[in-house]
Amino acid sequence: MNLILLFPADFILNTNRVRLTGRRHTHVMSVHKAGVGDELCVGMLDAKIGTGKITALDKDKLEMEVALERDPPAGLPVTLIMALPRPPMLRRTLFAATSMGVKRIYLINSFRVEKTFWQSHALREEDIRDQLVLGLEQARDTRLPEVFLRPKFKPFVEDELPQLAAGTLPLVAHPGSVTSCPRGVDRPVTLVIGPEGGFIPYEIEKFLELGFNAVGLGERILRFETVVPAILGRLF
Amino acid sequence: MNLILLFPADFILNTNRVRLTGRRHTHVMSVHKAGVGDELCVGMLDAKIGTGKITALDKDKLEMEVALERDPPAGLPVTLIMALPRPPMLRRTLFAATSMGVKRIYLINSFRVEKTFWQSHALREEDIRDQLVLGLEQARDTRLPEVFLRPKFKPFVEDELPQLAAGTLPLVAHPGSVTSCPRGVDRPVTLVIGPEGGFIPYEIEKFLELGFNAVGLGERILRFETVVPAILGRLF
Repeated sequence: MNLILLFPADFILNTNRVRLTGRRHTHVMSVHKAGVGDELCVGMLDAKIGTGKITALDKDKLEMEVALERDPPAGLPVTLIMALPRPPMLRRTLFAATSMGVKRIYLINSFRVEKTFWQSHALREEDIRDQLVLGLEQARDTRLPEVFLRPKFKPFVEDELPQLAAGTLPLVAHPGSVTSCPRGVDRPVTLVIGPEGGFIPYEIEKFLELGFNAVGLGERILRFETVVPAILGRLF
Repeated sequence: MNLILLFPADFILNTNRVRLTGRRHTHVMSVHKAGVGDELCVGMLDAKIGTGKITALDKDKLEMEVALERDPPAGLPVTLIMALPRPPMLRRTLFAATSMGVKRIYLINSFRVEKTFWQSHALREEDIRDQLVLGLEQARDTRLPEVFLRPKFKPFVEDELPQLAAGTLPLVAHPGSVTSCPRGVDRPVTLVIGPEGGFIPYEIEKFLELGFNAVGLGERILRFETVVPAILGRLF
């Protein structure tokens, strides 16, 4: 945790002081090994970053006096659309994408997405949010990404995607594609990443019809949590 | 497992047939759900890739007739030098780097590497090899990376690094560096990645003395397993 993310409910009414218990309190005790008077990096959800000076710390609670002064880092101008990965991979990918600054993520269906993935606990709102919060704390960011679930492929691609992709560079990462992924782009991107086995021809055709460019990253098959940083590092 | 990695000991003497038990056998039964006659992608350690046609499959063993025909994908022209990450992160980073095609990895010490990390099971030769094999199987590669442990910073940097870096583009990823990491380079790279808190001034100075360029990736602090793919995706 390189930043402690604060929420409105953490604040003691009408003060600039917070009282934390639970995970963040434990982390400061056991990992930061901080004490009264120490200053930690904090950030207010969807708002500024600053410092929290520890005013009280015992086995039950952590209290800090908070001064918020600077803006969080800019987000990446990308909408990330991924075929739903298997649950452990989903968690790691949400974490990685959030830490890199992605602010809008769509999880979509594909023929090669196992139906059971859509029933996973990892898709519960609070479980998704946990990963996003961890990703923000990792990267010293405060702006929570939005995550949308789209368990039906066709309605998403036909009714929603055209507007999402309008005015952006639309890319679909597709294994075996000979066009290599562009580098250092200067405009917003809509980036679609298929399942590990790739989209089926019907699906890839749908993206191409909408003007998407199929791009590859060579012959290697990479996991979601590897390919997402690799492509984002290349694009921005 | 997108490729089943084969070892010389898997082959039935003087034949092109292999007999597998253990992890690979279980995986083919439970994940591939394959049967006799099915063909799977296989590769010989440090050699060619091809197909294995299943000739026998029961609860004890898997037998395949193997035809190896094509070369594995090219490796990346990079020597990756990382401050030793904490064990779970080390495992994921070895996996990710291997899947992306890194063939030479040095794990080095730094003031901010916790001493206990050097005692971790994750550094045992067989544990490291497990991650490398999984990374190769993920990416359909066969060439095992070499991993070197260098628990003393100064002797490594002074006595070994100059020769390693000779003739390459030497980069050290350093948080807060204003020069951004180059893109699409056309020559071999020696890439150094520091611990999450960054190298201390003495350490970064040592790299700069050797002609390394300190490069940044913005203000975000990323985990090893995220920053490695992000930089590699950008460089190559």
